[in-house]
Parts: sequence; C-alpha cells; structure tokens
Amino acid sequence: MKINLDCFPCFLDQALRAAKMATNDPVKIKSVLDAVALMLPSISLESTPPEIGRRIYGCVHEITNNRDPYRQIKGESTKEALGLYPYMKALVEKSKDPLLSAIRMAIAGNIIDFGPNRKFDLKEEIDHTRRKAFALCDYERFKDDLARAKRVLYLGDNAGECVFDRVLLETMGKPTTYVVREKPVINDATVADAREAGIDGVAELMSSGTDAPGTLLETCNEGFLRLYRNAELIISKGQGNYEALSGEKTPIFFLLKVKCPVIADHLKLKEGDIVLTGGSAQNS
Amino acid sequence: MKINLDCFPCFLDQALRAAKMATNDPVKIKSVLDAVALMLPSISLESTPPEIGRRIYGCVHEITNNRDPYRQIKGESTKEALGLYPYMKALVEKSKDPLLSAIRMAIAGNIIDFGPNRKFDLKEEIDHTRRKAFALCDYERFKDDLARAKRVLYLGDNAGECVFDRVLLETMGKPTTYVVREKPVINDATVADAREAGIDGVAELMSSGTDAPGTLLETCNEGFLRLYRNAELIISKGQGNYEALSGEKTPIFFLLKVKCPVIADHLKLKEGDIVLTGGSAQNS
Repeated sequence: MKINLDCFPCFLDQALRAAKMATNDPVKIKSVLDAVALMLPSISLESTPPEIGRRIYGCVHEITNNRDPYRQIKGESTKEALGLYPYMKALVEKSKDPLLSAIRMAIAGNIIDFGPNRKFDLKEEIDHTRRKAFALCDYERFKDDLARAKRVLYLGDNAGECVFDRVLLETMGKPTTYVVREKPVINDATVADAREAGIDGVAELMSSGTDAPGTLLETCNEGFLRLYRNAELIISKGQGNYEALSGEKTPIFFLLKVKCPVIADHLKLKEGDIVLTGGSAQNS
Repeated sequence: MKINLDCFPCFLDQALRAAKMATNDPVKIKSVLDAVALMLPSISLESTPPEIGRRIYGCVHEITNNRDPYRQIKGESTKEALGLYPYMKALVEKSKDPLLSAIRMAIAGNIIDFGPNRKFDLKEEIDHTRRKAFALCDYERFKDDLARAKRVLYLGDNAGECVFDRVLLETMGKPTTYVVREKPVINDATVADAREAGIDGVAELMSSGTDAPGTLLETCNEGFLRLYRNAELIISKGQGNYEALSGEKTPIFFLLKVKCPVIADHLKLKEGDIVLTGGSAQNS
C-alpha cells in the first residue's frame, strides 16, 4: 500500500510524538521536527508507510541518541496484557467457536499502537472486539487454509499485543514461527518483547531483520525471506505489516483493526473496523 | 501568544487542507506540502500563530493560483447563519439577560472556523453555547467598561460568524467599528463577507489591512492602528485575534471558543471551553 498526501502531516506528528518520548530537550525535539520537515519533499508517493516510518524513527533515534524511546511503555503494555491473559483465555474457552474468539482477541490487542493512535483501555477493547461484527471476514477460508497448513508464519506487530497473539497461537495449536522486528521502532515488538509475553513457550521466535514499523521485505534478512517465500500460511498482524505486504501474492491473511483514515480508504472501510482478510483471494 | 512545537504538524495539516480546498491537482497540492515543509525549519518559536498562518496560506494562494479557496464555503456559512438569525434574535429577546445571551451567540458563531476545526452544526452549537458555563467570564467588568465607552472597536473573525456578531452589535446598541481582514485568508471575513452578513447596517465597517488570520499589528494599516491605539473598548473575536493580541496592553476583551490544544494550554483551559476575558485586568 502506498502513502498518500494525507500521510505527510501525520509523519510530522509521529516524529513530534516520538521525539517527545525520546527526550525532554526542546532543542533536540525541534531538531527532529526540522530534519523530518526537510525530508518530506524527498518522499516519493510510490513509498509505503513503513518505508517512511523507518526513516522518521531512524531520524528520531539518531538526533535524540535514544534508540528505544518506547522501552518503558512497551514493558508496561506487556505487563498489562499479561494481567488480562487469564481473562482472555477464559473467554476463548467458554466460546462456542474458540478459534474465532481467539482471532478477535488477537485483533483486540492490535489497539496497542503508539504510531497513529494514543489512548485505549485494554479491557474495554477486549469486551468491545469480542462482540463487534467483522467489516471483512474470510474466516471460512482461513479455517480451510489453517487445516491444510503444516506450519504457520505469524508476523507480530506491537509489544503487549504479543500476549493477545499468544492466545491465538495456543488456540490454533499449530507449529508456528513468530516474527518480530530486529531493532526497536515505535512500540513494535522485538525478540525481547515477545519473550516477555511468553511467545517463546508456544512458537519459534525469530527476527525478520527489519528496523521498519512493518515487514518491509527489502530490509528483511535472508533467513526470514526464505521462510516467507515458502510459507503455506502467513498471518500478518496490524497496520504496519498490512501497509508493507498488502500487494504481495502470498498465502497471507491480514488481521487488524483499522486505525487511520488512509488505510480505511485503501480498504474501503471505516476507522475502528476489524478485519480478517486474505488467503486464496490474495493469491489470485 | 507564541507558537509551540505542537503547532508544526498542524501547520502542515492546515496547508494540506487549504491546498485541497484550492485545487484538485495533486501535483500542486504536493508542491504546497513541499514548500511549507521546507519553510518549517525557518520558523522561530518566538512567532505568533497568525504570523505563520499568513505565510502558509500565502504559499497556498501563490502555488495554486487560487486567492480565495474558501470563497464558496464562506458564502454558504453566511447563508446558513442568516437562516438562524431570527432564531438567535428570539432567544436573545426572551432572555433574562439579553446582553449575556448575545455574547453567547457571538461565541457560538466562533465555531465556524476552517483553520484548526472542521465539522460543526450551527443550530446545535447555538443550543449548546446558550447553556454552557463560561470557563472565564469577566462579564461584570465588561458591562462596566461597555457602559463607559462611547464607541466600540470590534475585531471580527470568520465569515458566517459575522451574523452572530451582528446579534451582539444590535444588542449592545453602541456606535461600533467592525474590523475585518483586508484579503481572504482561510474563511476569515473580509469587507464583502461582513456586508453579506448585514454588518454595514449596524456598524461602521473597515479593513485592518492584514492578510493574516488574526489582527497581526505589524501588517495592519495606519487607519486601523490609530483607532486601535485610541480605543476605549475593544472586543476581539476568536482564536486568531487572541493569538495576535493576547500580550497587548489595551482595553480589550477576548470572546472565543477554545478549539486547539495549544490555546487551551496557554489559557490553562480545555478544548471546547468558552471565554469572555480581559478588560481592566488586561490593562494592568
């Protein structure tokens, strides 16, 4: 998915918020704003959002000399999500369709996103999402593809959200490789964050190699790309991975909550909508 | 009032919205974004928002070759406000305190603002504002100062809003000079807009000489500055005029609705708050 003109003010807004998270020094924050502003005219409309996100957050890290501004927030998100883990497990277990219920949990966790969004209440989000109608729902196809696949490649998104993904991984009960970012970017999960969420107990954990806020293939390592090219079933979580991979001809399902008007427009949906889409159609 | 770091993404957002209003050509819209992005690093934190607004909207006008992108919207706002004029007059007339009620009407009209804000329902805003508690209310001082003043200098803000101001002008019943912008900027009122609202029937109409979205004194003409310096009572409508004049030692009252977080922070209030503040205190 390509960026559009509406993304430009948002790029600057994200730079500002990340810079404030990274430092209290107003001079450095202004330097970040200046650097990102000067970068904007060089951005091609053929870019994807994670490509630009990578440049912006790289700029924040470099100027503020803080390589992980969201570290504390990420830890807090994981802790809070772990507190809700027993609640989610109970909801899934008593559900008539535990797999669909677990998919809803995984989507609820997608609210933990400090890129475009800010405020949320995790418990409220779980209760909201477990009852919300899907705007796109390729669930039957997902079930078929999952039944056929020997192994799942699961592209994680944010720290904290990993705990919600864990509920889905446990419910699917398939051998899975869970993929995270190589380096911190926004509040995206790294190997350490996924471990804190307990992912290493239910899936093989690996880094895609990227430092972009999305699975930007040209920045991924060979090990990941090999798995990606040969995967029977890929589950992609969140907006960043959708933005990076929406045009790809792979057996991929996207699970996400729509949180920005540009993605809403691209999917012809509304902000707040929840989505399970992909599979064979994506392949055709 | 000076800008702060939070203004920078908003500057780009305003440029984008104005450019879209001015043209359908995505190449020109991108040129506006690029030009404003390149301008941002040169902006001093000692600037006031209308100073920067003037540069941004000047840039939009120049690149799109559209000197009045909001012309149609301004006409529609005035027409809609005129349709509500009898309703407002009836509310004021049946009120226990017609002057305070008319002040509320004038503040309700301040919602017609295409700078920071976008969506509103005028009738709803009237009904909301006529009952809302003031966050700051120097009404007793205002009444005293108004009783003493022989003439009022009234700094208008947006097209459409002029109709709401007219209700206050008629209720005050004082000789008044009503001041508007010299050239179109956002949806700010010019002489033509004020005339359409019927202001010329109840006040003397003049241009301040500015093309900024606020009464930026260094861009005003000598005729206005003379009146301004000798005024016994000035009523300043809206955020733009507040941003330009909040530090001034003049007998000025600010009437506005708080519509942006930076102004809310400056006034130590919340977005949505309504304000009548100034007078002797401003002078001291």
